[in-house]
Amino acid sequence: MPRISLSRRLRRTPFSDGVEAAGVKAYTVYNRMLLPTVFESVEADYRHLKSHVQVWDVSCERQVELRGPDAGRLMQMLTPRDLRGMLPGQCYYVPIVDETGGMLNDPVAVKLSDDRWWISIADSDLLLWVKGVANGYRLDVLVDEPDVSPLAVQGPKADDLMARLFGDRVRDVRFFKFDMFQFEGRDLAVARSGYSKQGGFEIYVEGSNIGMPLWNALFAEGEDLNVRAGCPNLIERIEGGLLSYGNDMTDDNTPHECGLGKFCNTHTAIGCVGRDALLRVAKEGPVQQIRPIEIEGGAVPPCDRPWPVFAGGRQVGQVTSAAWSPDFGTNVSIGMLRLSHWDAGTEIEVETSDGMRRATVQGKFWI
Amino acid sequence: MPRISLSRRLRRTPFSDGVEAAGVKAYTVYNRMLLPTVFESVEADYRHLKSHVQVWDVSCERQVELRGPDAGRLMQMLTPRDLRGMLPGQCYYVPIVDETGGMLNDPVAVKLSDDRWWISIADSDLLLWVKGVANGYRLDVLVDEPDVSPLAVQGPKADDLMARLFGDRVRDVRFFKFDMFQFEGRDLAVARSGYSKQGGFEIYVEGSNIGMPLWNALFAEGEDLNVRAGCPNLIERIEGGLLSYGNDMTDDNTPHECGLGKFCNTHTAIGCVGRDALLRVAKEGPVQQIRPIEIEGGAVPPCDRPWPVFAGGRQVGQVTSAAWSPDFGTNVSIGMLRLSHWDAGTEIEVETSDGMRRATVQGKFWI
Repeated sequence: MPRISLSRRLRRTPFSDGVEAAGVKAYTVYNRMLLPTVFESVEADYRHLKSHVQVWDVSCERQVELRGPDAGRLMQMLTPRDLRGMLPGQCYYVPIVDETGGMLNDPVAVKLSDDRWWISIADSDLLLWVKGVANGYRLDVLVDEPDVSPLAVQGPKADDLMARLFGDRVRDVRFFKFDMFQFEGRDLAVARSGYSKQGGFEIYVEGSNIGMPLWNALFAEGEDLNVRAGCPNLIERIEGGLLSYGNDMTDDNTPHECGLGKFCNTHTAIGCVGRDALLRVAKEGPVQQIRPIEIEGGAVPPCDRPWPVFAGGRQVGQVTSAAWSPDFGTNVSIGMLRLSHWDAGTEIEVETSDGMRRATVQGKFWI
Repeated sequence: MPRISLSRRLRRTPFSDGVEAAGVKAYTVYNRMLLPTVFESVEADYRHLKSHVQVWDVSCERQVELRGPDAGRLMQMLTPRDLRGMLPGQCYYVPIVDETGGMLNDPVAVKLSDDRWWISIADSDLLLWVKGVANGYRLDVLVDEPDVSPLAVQGPKADDLMARLFGDRVRDVRFFKFDMFQFEGRDLAVARSGYSKQGGFEIYVEGSNIGMPLWNALFAEGEDLNVRAGCPNLIERIEGGLLSYGNDMTDDNTPHECGLGKFCNTHTAIGCVGRDALLRVAKEGPVQQIRPIEIEGGAVPPCDRPWPVFAGGRQVGQVTSAAWSPDFGTNVSIGMLRLSHWDAGTEIEVETSDGMRRATVQGKFWI
């Protein structure tokens, strides 16, 4: 694994001091910000995440704030998901598309009030698209990146740890809802969400200066819960079918290709700039789609580029994320497959960096 | 230096195989793409760059292509530099600003013809801003990222190496002009430009499949010129005053604060979306500006975050890039200073990661 050269451009976060003190071993860069990828080892981090509770610096999930009379209108312009029924206090996973229906991001939209939204973004400068659209359509809306850095608390003991800090009321927050909780006199939005299938919360930490106090308080409260610094885990997120924008999909793909058709109401999402482009694919369905794929043999090498997928000597897709799963005793992976070869049970071949492997399309993700 | 976890999201380039074979030791991530930062060591790479010739994989300077009847109009909307006099075959360094006059990028615009431009971008998803503006204003223009990856040839022997591959005509290409040259039957734009002060060219490699053939041809032709794989060099670019978007400036800054007022013709740049916001600062001047700063003492530690600058106990700015310069026997740095403390000769203090240092504002960059 090569080294990373640090500079101001790869932004530190309000929790970086804590991450370093916890012995981070590797990073990726996400939204031009440092995102830890390994503490002990990917496998040891995985085992701990599934057994205890971890605190994750996911500041790189930057927020795009929309505020003003046209905020709701602009939010609907961005996505084919119909937002009319969404209430303040809710979080929606929303595919964001351009005028051709290509995915620009797959964020979580947080509705703070009718005229104020946060978009908690995946890895692309969505701020620039939203600002450009708002400017071009001359909307009355402020669009900027506020000083908000999400801190995730994930794992089976997440409720216990959070309740110690915020009180038992935090246990009542339902999935993809948020409520406000106090820390050091500050009101923070706390949502039941996060990039794992182990359960937990995301705290929208508003104000960098309370970052380390909150980090330290979580570790102080959680010592007997075996709390540890962690990060989104490659193995666990593939097992759980959590997609990664830039890895498993890009602006070449429609939401339907990504299996996100259930988050699209293209017919009724009036105002969405990509609506015209998506109406046909929404009706007829895509010709390629994301699938879970089991790859045979021992642990695959790191998947640092798309691996072509073949059947009968012809390319029928590609694998974009892959890892050895200790719990399932196989290589779990995510790929995009042509319609002709996406049915569960279909046998295919994957050209990994260390050679061709037999593989089988799965009917569902592992967890 | 921590490790970097590779994944498809941190895109490889058409030259990555060559970069790895040349023994790259560290990367940064730039426009979600791998950019090498160290081959032998930053100091050894610096010495070689100033003595011989290097081939740089700067594919991360992605292109935004504008094509169609409104391409020229859109290009002018993006920048306060007056583009009326620009001819096909020219390259212009253009500050790109949003509606508030904040810098979104500082790319090189390449005018291919009246209705076709490339914008060779610094580190932000400028594509999204340009697409948003084009969509909002309903312009007749195609905006996308073509399969074009710049390869730079830099150093005092760059002309000799390039002439061997492309013929002596390449020596006649003037600074910030380009001309078309053939390689394996393909027409490539070759500009006299690059992110160093050692002279050289940037080849706009159109078509990933000719990336490695071109890379290999340059190394085969240049063996006796001591050609080596290299990369933008931290020390040399600070000595030369080459700014880095995201390090030395962000969207918080106007072009005038970045010392780029000479590239702004705000009064006559009719159509620029940030024109109204910039007219006042263009007339009155900024209240803070980028300056070269010499920092006393031994080699400074890596500058991975802004270092506050003080005078009389009050903060008057920050340093954002710094390195020990072997040739000048001092620490060279780039910082943003308040009007009250930006005159050459002003004595200030810089709070580096390993303590406070005395420093002096310089009248000009070192090379």
